[in-house]
Amino acid sequence: MIGRLCVIGVGLIGGSLVAALRERGLVGEVVGCARRAETLATAEYLGLIDRGETDPAAAIAGADVVVIAVPMGQYRALFDTLAPVWPEQAIVTDCGSTKTSVHADLEAALGRLPSNFVAGHPVAGTERSGPAAALPGLFRHRRVILTPHAQAAADATARVRALWEAVGAAVSSMSDRHHDEVLALTSHLPHVVAYELIGTLAAAADEREVFAYAAGGLRDLTRIASSDAGMWRDIVLANREAVGQALDAYIAGLQAARAELLAGDGAALQRRFAGARSTREQWIRTAEVD
Amino acid sequence: MIGRLCVIGVGLIGGSLVAALRERGLVGEVVGCARRAETLATAEYLGLIDRGETDPAAAIAGADVVVIAVPMGQYRALFDTLAPVWPEQAIVTDCGSTKTSVHADLEAALGRLPSNFVAGHPVAGTERSGPAAALPGLFRHRRVILTPHAQAAADATARVRALWEAVGAAVSSMSDRHHDEVLALTSHLPHVVAYELIGTLAAAADEREVFAYAAGGLRDLTRIASSDAGMWRDIVLANREAVGQALDAYIAGLQAARAELLAGDGAALQRRFAGARSTREQWIRTAEVD
Repeated sequence: MIGRLCVIGVGLIGGSLVAALRERGLVGEVVGCARRAETLATAEYLGLIDRGETDPAAAIAGADVVVIAVPMGQYRALFDTLAPVWPEQAIVTDCGSTKTSVHADLEAALGRLPSNFVAGHPVAGTERSGPAAALPGLFRHRRVILTPHAQAAADATARVRALWEAVGAAVSSMSDRHHDEVLALTSHLPHVVAYELIGTLAAAADEREVFAYAAGGLRDLTRIASSDAGMWRDIVLANREAVGQALDAYIAGLQAARAELLAGDGAALQRRFAGARSTREQWIRTAEVD
Repeated sequence: MIGRLCVIGVGLIGGSLVAALRERGLVGEVVGCARRAETLATAEYLGLIDRGETDPAAAIAGADVVVIAVPMGQYRALFDTLAPVWPEQAIVTDCGSTKTSVHADLEAALGRLPSNFVAGHPVAGTERSGPAAALPGLFRHRRVILTPHAQAAADATARVRALWEAVGAAVSSMSDRHHDEVLALTSHLPHVVAYELIGTLAAAADEREVFAYAAGGLRDLTRIASSDAGMWRDIVLANREAVGQALDAYIAGLQAARAELLAGDGAALQRRFAGARSTREQWIRTAEVD
């Protein structure tokens, strides 16, 4: 049970966490913080927050738990604002899609990594955003990765873990660097892949006709290309080294496939496609057992 | 109404067409042809065909309409078998995913393009295959592209068009070459993209962990990587020139995105992602109006 929760950023992720905690009666008062008063008004209207503040320093006052759920591009400025009023009495966590950048921004703003901060990443989401997209079941059976830094207090980490487990998530821990390498492959690269596939089709001479003949496979493949562009620009920039390496590996794979295609090497293409199919089927089976 | 229909290849596409025609009472007798007796037994058990033949020459005897629905890699051998017994009295069409290769294979086998052959491509499918995957509604509200060659008889083209319209499809016509360029972008490239994305993740040092943290976005993106590998090997090989060009354009786009990423050019990435998002949203809206 959390007495007073402060959620900085009441979009899809922050809003869904609050909705899930409320549904289970696990939170007393919820103070929301957003840059725009309209967002706060929507979140209050939807019953997600009890009151809203546009100033993060005012929003965190008296909070027991502070959850940061803003786009990656806003972290540094937010930490600069919080630095002089850092809530030492609270547990502070975040929901960002990259983790080394969060620690770097925090250390740059505060001159240290406070022991009451535990970085986290709920691996969940949809292509929608904003408080109206919030779903109380968003984290059920989904994974949350915590990347506590070396000075993080054990009890702070335990409380953040309990928070996510309470809303149905499976929580695990790893280093911030390892998190960023894994997510570059599983999430950041796929977004670039999907955006760029749409871009390639749009560049065709007969763009309108091309999309007229696109079928269900392309629609599913590119669903994540409907994700917010600014949010994903910030994520890939915040993890540019690992995303760059993932892109290099992917481009090299495509070039190898292209060479096999132009050489008419059916056996190599068969191995390539069949290997991928088998890997995916194995993954889906394992995921369904979980 | 078709008196006797011969379907060569009773998998997802051939089986679904028969199921759709039967559901509407538009066909009398259905003769199925497959290389394996087990496939024919399954198709007969499912009520898709009245009788089965493993020999295409026997299967086409007395047919009013012949529908070829075999994988691309089997066309040349099939046309070689049919050449001495080409059913001049019937209308012959096919369901292949590439069209210039079909005309090339047919001309190589027969020494001509017969006026009773009208090439076609139902732009529909799932990642499943085989007669048990057949669905009578598979072609409803889906597009079918006909690519009649210059010597194709107008009444043959009209009858093939009517066949597909009868099962709910929207039929259009274009040249075989244009079809292959459009489908290279909308279908063939996306399959390579999806197979290769799985391949890139599988090549990671911690493959098992990588897939453990993959979420819904990656699952949807790679659904078509569960498609039959041999079928897609044959399709991309049959359309290698256009698929190679589509791959070149896609790789160039990824390299441009990579350069923007490593240069920290947020404005360029924003334009790139936002442009793709807007194109996709426009496409989905248009598709929903159809």
